[in-house]
Amino acid sequence: MTSTCFDYARAHENQFLDELKAFLQIPSVSTQAEHRPDMIRAAVWLRDQLLAIGFPRAEVMPTHGHPIIYAEWLAAGPEKPTVLIYGHYDVQPPEPFELWHTPPFEPTVIGDNLFARGASDDKGQLFVHVKALEAFQQTAGAPPVNIKMLIEGEEEIGSPSLDPFIREHQDLLRADVALISDSHILGKDLPTIVYALRGMAYVEVEVTGPASDLHSGIYGGAVHNPINALCAMIAKLQDEDGRILIPGFYDKVRDLEPEERAELAKIPFDREVWLAEAGVIRDWGEPGYTIIERTMARPTLDVNGIWGGYTQPGAKTVLPAKAFAKISMRLVPDQKPGEISRLIAEYFRALAPATVTVEVRDLHGGEGAIVRRDSPEMAAAFRAYKAAFGREPILVREGGSIPVVAAFQKMLGIDTILMGFGLPDDNLHAPNEKLAVSNFHRGVQTSLHFLTNLAEL
Amino acid sequence: MTSTCFDYARAHENQFLDELKAFLQIPSVSTQAEHRPDMIRAAVWLRDQLLAIGFPRAEVMPTHGHPIIYAEWLAAGPEKPTVLIYGHYDVQPPEPFELWHTPPFEPTVIGDNLFARGASDDKGQLFVHVKALEAFQQTAGAPPVNIKMLIEGEEEIGSPSLDPFIREHQDLLRADVALISDSHILGKDLPTIVYALRGMAYVEVEVTGPASDLHSGIYGGAVHNPINALCAMIAKLQDEDGRILIPGFYDKVRDLEPEERAELAKIPFDREVWLAEAGVIRDWGEPGYTIIERTMARPTLDVNGIWGGYTQPGAKTVLPAKAFAKISMRLVPDQKPGEISRLIAEYFRALAPATVTVEVRDLHGGEGAIVRRDSPEMAAAFRAYKAAFGREPILVREGGSIPVVAAFQKMLGIDTILMGFGLPDDNLHAPNEKLAVSNFHRGVQTSLHFLTNLAEL
Repeated sequence: MTSTCFDYARAHENQFLDELKAFLQIPSVSTQAEHRPDMIRAAVWLRDQLLAIGFPRAEVMPTHGHPIIYAEWLAAGPEKPTVLIYGHYDVQPPEPFELWHTPPFEPTVIGDNLFARGASDDKGQLFVHVKALEAFQQTAGAPPVNIKMLIEGEEEIGSPSLDPFIREHQDLLRADVALISDSHILGKDLPTIVYALRGMAYVEVEVTGPASDLHSGIYGGAVHNPINALCAMIAKLQDEDGRILIPGFYDKVRDLEPEERAELAKIPFDREVWLAEAGVIRDWGEPGYTIIERTMARPTLDVNGIWGGYTQPGAKTVLPAKAFAKISMRLVPDQKPGEISRLIAEYFRALAPATVTVEVRDLHGGEGAIVRRDSPEMAAAFRAYKAAFGREPILVREGGSIPVVAAFQKMLGIDTILMGFGLPDDNLHAPNEKLAVSNFHRGVQTSLHFLTNLAEL
Repeated sequence: MTSTCFDYARAHENQFLDELKAFLQIPSVSTQAEHRPDMIRAAVWLRDQLLAIGFPRAEVMPTHGHPIIYAEWLAAGPEKPTVLIYGHYDVQPPEPFELWHTPPFEPTVIGDNLFARGASDDKGQLFVHVKALEAFQQTAGAPPVNIKMLIEGEEEIGSPSLDPFIREHQDLLRADVALISDSHILGKDLPTIVYALRGMAYVEVEVTGPASDLHSGIYGGAVHNPINALCAMIAKLQDEDGRILIPGFYDKVRDLEPEERAELAKIPFDREVWLAEAGVIRDWGEPGYTIIERTMARPTLDVNGIWGGYTQPGAKTVLPAKAFAKISMRLVPDQKPGEISRLIAEYFRALAPATVTVEVRDLHGGEGAIVRRDSPEMAAAFRAYKAAFGREPILVREGGSIPVVAAFQKMLGIDTILMGFGLPDDNLHAPNEKLAVSNFHRGVQTSLHFLTNLAEL
């Protein structure tokens, strides 16, 4: 019977892709208020999909922010394990529009790539499992293990409603293992499982100089310009090599074990290919660590946005009242987001000259996580990738943040299998986001194998 | 007969103000391409005004950019002096709109203030002389001296067409003295004549890191962030006190003479009032110089705008491809704008780490100027202010830039009388620009006296 589900999925690849395109057409940008109706449309669309493929229960549940979709299908019976599949239906803002080669919300296949905002992060990867479940339903009547789904709409804005939801619904969400596809594999033929994630602290800095914009010819030289002041403070956050200078920042960083460094060194890595994918001539960063270590296992700081004064074409001689920056820090175990946000806020206050005022707002944070590498579920995932991709996956740490992994550990007591199907150059959070169509279809096969393997544990 | 022109002006104050409001309603923003039709409307409106008040010749003359208005009225005869009146009909961009208490292009009188973009800089001050000329025409048939008018539409974007126009029309523009009202007096009862102006060099800096925007979780820590790099470079432009660190920047700065410092120290200055007008708690800037010296007679550097990455509400973890800044430097004699632009570009190239590329574009520049303080025309201006304001003006240097003063010196061999009617808190280049209505009317009286005095030299 299980062989049929694989055949069904292969026979319905075009249908699966068309349905994914319909999902991607909904501009569910969680951070932009004008897209609130689209958020609801996306949630309802996905719930209806789940009901259509056989879920006896699928609900759009309200939160203080964007709704969460909860669904369950417990037909396998109590002797079979329960898998909690997490994903998110919200996407990053598409701006800047002018850099997209195809419209971000008109999914377009070019060669093996499907271009659209959300194609990889996370609608496409989430949809892999939805279609695997459809294949089970169409061939066996139901999946071989018990399934719970938890799909949020606030991942791209720091998941403010997710932790309270999990805490409030611990019984509802009880499961044996969690499954998330919101990461990437290292190459189309290099399946990869992520076992550690970085956390994040994200702040917005507002520097205020004069009460209103001034003419730089009249006041320049005697009124401190808040942009100049902000740049001077940002310049003191890092040294030239990227080592972070915020006092206390590294205090809680767990050093990389020699054994782990040896493992990370085994990850296939072509420096030239990496430089080409990054679009840079040379790399940069903390001395003493490889590129892989710096991007996967060391904390970082990036100014994600900066603005102030006159930013339109032409010349305007304004001495502005305010300057702003958005700054995020990727964290590693055992750094705590709240503590790091507090440290950077204190540092800014210490750096601020008496001529300006500075306010640091904590926009959001998430903890990093490390999961067990020797569990039976991890072994089942290894076998699933091997069956679908033809080779065993490699184990890596991931530079990005999926704070829900830490939340599942803390509140539900379960580990997560991070089964990625994206690629490193998928342009997440950037123009021309894409997903390899072949990865999508192989992903469905991998999911079918994984759930089948879990049922046999 | 001359007494009648003063009476006429007083009797027609409401009409003058209404006409100025009509002029201010035209959003002639020279730096924004969408306002090109408004630029033409403003030029034609002003030409028609000049024809209506009796100018035998008034033309809208094309340039490679926005047109220049030239007008002449030479009825006083060759034995009388010729005055070249300069002004500009273009205005600064009104952004940010949300900080205006009244719409920028709906002129609104509140108390003694007329609020509108361009009220002070420079439509209102320019219009003072137009209405003085009308008073002469209505009472004496013509002004008592020969008048030429040169009104440009590119002052706020660095006057790219003005120097070529002056060079090409040296005979047409020949005059004995120039008159410009595009500066401010120190208080409603403190008439002021500016005898020195700062120049300007204005550049735009573009820093490029990766070829396209990247996900900071995947590449952060191994790709140099161009915003961080830009901030680090800007931080090295000045020390904490505002002393500029660009090598060679101060080489050509003419030191202030002790006598001139003594004169500047006589300018009435209330530190508390200045702080309140600037909207700051404390001043800032080069040690060893007073606030007046720093804002009038010392070179400065201000970042007028900065932008890069994600600047919308919420959090986006982008590692952007580019970051930009607009930077202007106010210059004093004998600094040359072209040389200073070259020095800052060289400095940026020297500062730029190998991980990013930096491009510095020269947006525009203008030379500073100092005019004679002991000429008969200056004496005529002193007497005119005394008659209209009840006290003699004080002589000051001005922090802003009116490069045309240097151009008139070089190409026409004439000095300029800078007869300001604005106030220091007129919010030039900022929201809620205004002009004191009483200054406008006293300005017309001052202009009438000045031109009358010139005829009697």
